Amino acid sequence: VYNISILTIGDEICIGQITNTNASWLAAKCTELGANVVTHSSIRDDKQEMVDELNRLIPKSDLLIITGGLGPTHDDITKQVLAEYFKDELVTDKDWEAHLIKFFNKRGYVLTERNRAQALVPNSSKVLSNSIGTAPGLLFEVDGKKIIALPGVPSEMKAIFIDNISSIIKSDMIVRNDDVLVYKNFQVSGIPESKLADLIGETDKFLDGGSLAFLPSFKGIRLRVGVKAKSFEEGISKIGLIEKVLYERAGGFIYGQNDDSLVSKVGEYLVQSKSTVSVAESCTGGLLGAEFTKISGSSEYFVGGGIVYSNEAKINILGVDSETLMKHGAVSEEVVKELARNVRTKFRTDFGIGITGIAGPTGGTEEKPVGTVWIGLSDEKVTIAQRFVFGNDRDMNRERAVGTALNMLLKRLKNFKDS
Amino acid sequence: VYNISILTIGDEICIGQITNTNASWLAAKCTELGANVVTHSSIRDDKQEMVDELNRLIPKSDLLIITGGLGPTHDDITKQVLAEYFKDELVTDKDWEAHLIKFFNKRGYVLTERNRAQALVPNSSKVLSNSIGTAPGLLFEVDGKKIIALPGVPSEMKAIFIDNISSIIKSDMIVRNDDVLVYKNFQVSGIPESKLADLIGETDKFLDGGSLAFLPSFKGIRLRVGVKAKSFEEGISKIGLIEKVLYERAGGFIYGQNDDSLVSKVGEYLVQSKSTVSVAESCTGGLLGAEFTKISGSSEYFVGGGIVYSNEAKINILGVDSETLMKHGAVSEEVVKELARNVRTKFRTDFGIGITGIAGPTGGTEEKPVGTVWIGLSDEKVTIAQRFVFGNDRDMNRERAVGTALNMLLKRLKNFKDS
Repeated sequence: VYNISILTIGDEICIGQITNTNASWLAAKCTELGANVVTHSSIRDDKQEMVDELNRLIPKSDLLIITGGLGPTHDDITKQVLAEYFKDELVTDKDWEAHLIKFFNKRGYVLTERNRAQALVPNSSKVLSNSIGTAPGLLFEVDGKKIIALPGVPSEMKAIFIDNISSIIKSDMIVRNDDVLVYKNFQVSGIPESKLADLIGETDKFLDGGSLAFLPSFKGIRLRVGVKAKSFEEGISKIGLIEKVLYERAGGFIYGQNDDSLVSKVGEYLVQSKSTVSVAESCTGGLLGAEFTKISGSSEYFVGGGIVYSNEAKINILGVDSETLMKHGAVSEEVVKELARNVRTKFRTDFGIGITGIAGPTGGTEEKPVGTVWIGLSDEKVTIAQRFVFGNDRDMNRERAVGTALNMLLKRLKNFKDS
Repeated sequence: VYNISILTIGDEICIGQITNTNASWLAAKCTELGANVVTHSSIRDDKQEMVDELNRLIPKSDLLIITGGLGPTHDDITKQVLAEYFKDELVTDKDWEAHLIKFFNKRGYVLTERNRAQALVPNSSKVLSNSIGTAPGLLFEVDGKKIIALPGVPSEMKAIFIDNISSIIKSDMIVRNDDVLVYKNFQVSGIPESKLADLIGETDKFLDGGSLAFLPSFKGIRLRVGVKAKSFEEGISKIGLIEKVLYERAGGFIYGQNDDSLVSKVGEYLVQSKSTVSVAESCTGGLLGAEFTKISGSSEYFVGGGIVYSNEAKINILGVDSETLMKHGAVSEEVVKELARNVRTKFRTDFGIGITGIAGPTGGTEEKPVGTVWIGLSDEKVTIAQRFVFGNDRDMNRERAVGTALNMLLKRLKNFKDS
């Protein structure tokens, strides 16, 4: 297999000020290519730490990807340390310098000395072009090992990877005739993890050396199947056999594969059935609408909705009956049904979803504790509502409400389709 | 200083299926306590890798925190490997067993053998109670070094840290009389990074050995000041001197400190001025409303809004003039002003915010490229609108629109206050 390690440089990662999304993005991309991501490591902006990690990670990797510390300020030490490590000198890359001049001219600026320094690169390195920023990627090759340094700005790191590195990994793996690791994911909803495990039952036989992992989240469970194979084709056919068993045993709960998400799948069903949807959100405050409109092209089925956080907004904007509100409270079956029904008629959509609850951390009562959420779903024929009691965490309760609402709509759409 | 390393065990992290939020959470908590987080490392569910990391990380750490691989399934190897590493045997912790029986009885289940195994712990370890799950944390002490293993489920990991580990770190640091690292953050908006750097100017003198980092995001720039000191008190007074200079040079752009966010600060100003706000969202689809309602207590000033994704919704729900729409298009100054004004009157709030744009990746034209966003802000006296051209990434454009809208409102509220 082709082994890749990922090294992140930066105090802000080490002290936990930002989460290392660069590492997970890079790891996912490398995994897609069939490579084996061995380890991620994050260290401070410190020369000795960096040298220690180079010494440790290069021997165990065919490719080491470094992110961070390539910018123009004084705490950006990566380029300097790499030059010393490989006994290089910094020399001006004329092509990159010309690119920088053009880059700044286009924006009406002259190139400052600080920015011109971005064209200084270690003499043994190769420049990897950065289509959206000023710091190029750097590629070193030593004893058949590759070391690549990338800027830490996520958008620039991604652009350099997509434009340059993906093809380097692919051709390396072909030349070396490496084994590949192939993964496929199955998206499950509407069943708890332990029940799903029972349904799938004994795995050793049908996995035949492959792996099966359960990854639960608020939006369902992701089943990940992995196999090692001589080629992608062989891997895919091995996974095909496993997939067959999974669908036989738990197919009713598998709603999608790989990058499918609840909201993308709901969108597909809505397009297929030429239906539209609108939302009435209280405790989620727009989060469900934001989730629908994440998907480019969602305007085909998502019309809009009302964010009705206050009782007045519920009454004035979505015509909730003030007596119903008084009698049953905002977090009630009666109100959520009115929300779902009224938003559907007001926005003239086929489906209306209503959400009202106590997100927390305060505002709960004995009868309606924090985490109580009512979700309503209305179509021309029927309006249903379900009550859920999630946990104490505000963010989680809002996320779970969104996931649960999408799951209710998905179920309804699947029933329509299957009937 | 007190050195802490964080080791994460799990294929799902290594292959990039999930982002390592455990590491950033733990790192932030340890940093708050004044400790020095040296490194984070993530490895696969692999015994040899784990042994190698124990050998590497224990010597460089006063405390090593391990997360993941403590669950009840066969790929959870952490406990077994630690027992072998410390030449321990697994013995039943009677207290934890009793706790498990109670835990399951309370939920109406009997304790299965698989779950009873959670009470098996290496004989030299100390059990750290888990108030919300079945896998306890484990504490080992060897040659004055501490090693702690925690389950990977974030909520359980956090509960064990808060209940047990925080106090261990504090008392260790007191006993050893360690230096502490103290940080303070300043939140800046409305100025680009390079201009901010120019404003602050030469730093070596006033930093006096401390550090200053710039962390830009879509919502502004976070300035992080760090100092090393004999005590928290000394650290805070050192930072006070630096803070004074920062406010002298760039105070007009600093809107908050530490965990303040644009939306929390906007909320504070709205409470102070007893004002309310509503939102009319097209391309952001509810994201601004979701941001407002992240804050517990936002019902005091956030009333609600309209998600008006389709033109019909803009016309029917928020009364945008259909001729204006036809003549200028949905992404225009005229429409965004109507959105801001109409949502304000319809929801009877003091401020109304309108957002309409082309989030992308498709739908752009020569005149209105992808990333074009109009943001409107209306109050009783005036309705203003500004045009922005962000980038090509849909998610980023939506996030930037939300950040920019909040910044426009913040400015307005500050001016009110200062005048």
